[in-house]
Amino acid sequence: METVLAYLRDHEDRFIQELCDYIGFPSVSAQPAHRGDLSACAHWLRRHCHDLGLEVRLCTTPGHPILLAGTPRRKGRRKPHFLVYGHYDVQPPEPFELWNSPPFEPRRVGRSLFGRGASDNKGQHWAHLKAVEAYRRTGTELPCDLTFLIEGEEEVGSSHLSAFLRDHRAELRCDAVVISDTGMPARGLPALTYSLRGIAALELKLTGPDRDLHSGIFGGSVDNPALALCQLLAQLRDRRGRVTIPGFYDEVAPLTLHERKALRRLPFHARQYARFLGVPKLFGERGFTPWEQRTARPTIEINGLTSGYQGAGSKTIIPTCASAKLTLRLVPNQQPERTIRHVVRHLRRLTPPTVRLEVSAGHGAEPYLVSPTSGYAQASLRALRSAFGQTPVLLREGGSIPIVTAFRKQLGADSLLLGLALPDDNPHSPNEKFDLDNFAAGMRLGAHLWPELAAASAKTPRRD
Amino acid sequence: METVLAYLRDHEDRFIQELCDYIGFPSVSAQPAHRGDLSACAHWLRRHCHDLGLEVRLCTTPGHPILLAGTPRRKGRRKPHFLVYGHYDVQPPEPFELWNSPPFEPRRVGRSLFGRGASDNKGQHWAHLKAVEAYRRTGTELPCDLTFLIEGEEEVGSSHLSAFLRDHRAELRCDAVVISDTGMPARGLPALTYSLRGIAALELKLTGPDRDLHSGIFGGSVDNPALALCQLLAQLRDRRGRVTIPGFYDEVAPLTLHERKALRRLPFHARQYARFLGVPKLFGERGFTPWEQRTARPTIEINGLTSGYQGAGSKTIIPTCASAKLTLRLVPNQQPERTIRHVVRHLRRLTPPTVRLEVSAGHGAEPYLVSPTSGYAQASLRALRSAFGQTPVLLREGGSIPIVTAFRKQLGADSLLLGLALPDDNPHSPNEKFDLDNFAAGMRLGAHLWPELAAASAKTPRRD
Repeated sequence: METVLAYLRDHEDRFIQELCDYIGFPSVSAQPAHRGDLSACAHWLRRHCHDLGLEVRLCTTPGHPILLAGTPRRKGRRKPHFLVYGHYDVQPPEPFELWNSPPFEPRRVGRSLFGRGASDNKGQHWAHLKAVEAYRRTGTELPCDLTFLIEGEEEVGSSHLSAFLRDHRAELRCDAVVISDTGMPARGLPALTYSLRGIAALELKLTGPDRDLHSGIFGGSVDNPALALCQLLAQLRDRRGRVTIPGFYDEVAPLTLHERKALRRLPFHARQYARFLGVPKLFGERGFTPWEQRTARPTIEINGLTSGYQGAGSKTIIPTCASAKLTLRLVPNQQPERTIRHVVRHLRRLTPPTVRLEVSAGHGAEPYLVSPTSGYAQASLRALRSAFGQTPVLLREGGSIPIVTAFRKQLGADSLLLGLALPDDNPHSPNEKFDLDNFAAGMRLGAHLWPELAAASAKTPRRD
Repeated sequence: METVLAYLRDHEDRFIQELCDYIGFPSVSAQPAHRGDLSACAHWLRRHCHDLGLEVRLCTTPGHPILLAGTPRRKGRRKPHFLVYGHYDVQPPEPFELWNSPPFEPRRVGRSLFGRGASDNKGQHWAHLKAVEAYRRTGTELPCDLTFLIEGEEEVGSSHLSAFLRDHRAELRCDAVVISDTGMPARGLPALTYSLRGIAALELKLTGPDRDLHSGIFGGSVDNPALALCQLLAQLRDRRGRVTIPGFYDEVAPLTLHERKALRRLPFHARQYARFLGVPKLFGERGFTPWEQRTARPTIEINGLTSGYQGAGSKTIIPTCASAKLTLRLVPNQQPERTIRHVVRHLRRLTPPTVRLEVSAGHGAEPYLVSPTSGYAQASLRALRSAFGQTPVLLREGGSIPIVTAFRKQLGADSLLLGLALPDDNPHSPNEKFDLDNFAAGMRLGAHLWPELAAASAKTPRRD
């Protein structure tokens, strides 16, 4: 183990340089114009894994390709098998003007590496890949088989991963999935995330007149779709932060007293947090703490609004239509499809007869909950402690990783969520960064994890 | 008179061709990129008026230039003096994809001429200009002096016209101003508009977090500016179509019983009108007819909404900010500044402490009301009857022509609003058109008007 850790220390600068090359690919899966960049990124990654001596396959899908990179398996001897999941696609970088440096020209400032995808998720799975490089280059035997599965559609709902897992079930069957794509509650405080929120996306559009109308000539006798949209959306959440959609909370699993107590022990300073976000005041569902609100309670968010004239100056029109992009974050045991049905029924009921409503459902992912007391979870906690030199905490997280449900359904494997992101890493925002101390700790985690998990495997009956 | 009318008939095709050249200039005053096009358009117009033998000056302003083109005045003999107002600037053409032909490549289909600015306002003042050409080319003496004042900032609030009138008060002093920039209630039914709505524009922006935030990681404990904006705007108008801003209706002059009776006699078919606009159902302030709602009652409209991600696919963010462009249509005796104050006070009161509100007031124009029984009004009605062969009606109109107030204040002159636009001319919308029968009638109006107004002038004391 000491040689592995020494190798990681000695080559850190090169690893960071390689990571910069990786971040340089504008692999924005939501934007069709970047299709070629995703392919180029995947091919670069494939070459890199190949050069590390991994057995590599770049598998086409109807969307972006999926990379499989496995440690070579020796015939005869059965080792435990773990999957390491990551994604090479990134969120759109817009708005560009708010970035302090170009999003795809990574820039190192002290112990921070800035760039779109640095933290979400290129930097995080890079740490695991480099730990495996250390095992291989130092001739240290891995106590388990590993397969890296790195996909290119996480930011658009991983729409083809589930079918891929089903089609490759035999070869991908594993004892557990390791995913570093979540966060830590504070610098130096490692965490195992045992619950994730789900997500359900939809887009709605209200159409009024069949063209933009002169607001002077026609204004007064025809409804304004933008105002109708506002009046519709305004009725989705009340002033106490409760979502007002009938049925929305029906399936929500309440927090246990034990969990609420544990969450209350996590570090949190409301004023500091508000300052960090730049908001004049925090806001959330009454009766819950901010930690609970953003990790264990469902929400509805408007992600985008579009209507009428948005250019310079003014244009005196009644716009023909108005639209909104929405996402809901779901908690155990809400279901995306059922929730979307609740929302659509509510919207239809509220839409006035003066406009036409169109709704299209987008991607969805179920919320996730695993036991933090399983053998693998406890093994992960030990590896976290060794890597960070700190006692880790148990966490719920507010984000969604749609594929943990797929891993459970298709491969029968639970996911170990060992996040390396700091609260100020700005994922999905301008000036995303990855902390290089966490990168180093992430690599140490990748060193300590496999012996711990392999040992736990001996005591864990394999689900098939 | 007969020679003048014959000349207009004989040269109609050439006039239409010239008008097409005029519409070909993309003179979009709201968009800084078109500054050069406005200048080119103004110079083209100057040259054209010069070639008609008018005394021409293109006057610079801090914005776009103003063209003055006057009939040559003979020393000694004092004739009545009338101003003809028009504007060579046009509304932005967006959205381009809804035009059946390019907005600045005019296309003639039957008796319709399609193109941005065809009806609002290039075609309408072109009719007056061609009538004067007919007088001059046939050697018919005009019974009055005329000055065409054609500006380039009507669609952005005529911000420099008032100062221009003040600075040129002596030379522009006149008996009345003739403006064809309004509409007719139906094909073949000419109208004198005796009242216009005013306008007040403003833009508001709500800012929450200082950057877009990941909606999973942060969603739940921070307000969503887009949702806050919707909740704010939703409270501006109730379900009965009443603006809910305290004080908003305080100054509104009620309609007289006589006016309501007259408005009820105007042609109107609700179902046909709804079909023409393409709306599933009309909507307006309860207790008023559609004619009243859109010409004699104030409104609030959202002209544009902007927030967050508007590209393809989805982006799971809480947007940093959300903004809206608003205009209010005002009726006598509302004042733009006072109304804006009511709105801003209301918005400030409703803005929650979780977001920051910024409001910027845009252009404004007072509503307008003149007596339809004055000598000039009666003279105009006679000219309309001669030109159209139909008894004209008296009309209120919903649009705003900000400069009628300036003419009254700076020159002491009332405006005669003799509109040539049909209800389906699509001004401010894609596929704007001008009716060529109305163009011909407009030229005849320009022929009959000056003898009628000159005669009325003899009986009207001049205001100074």
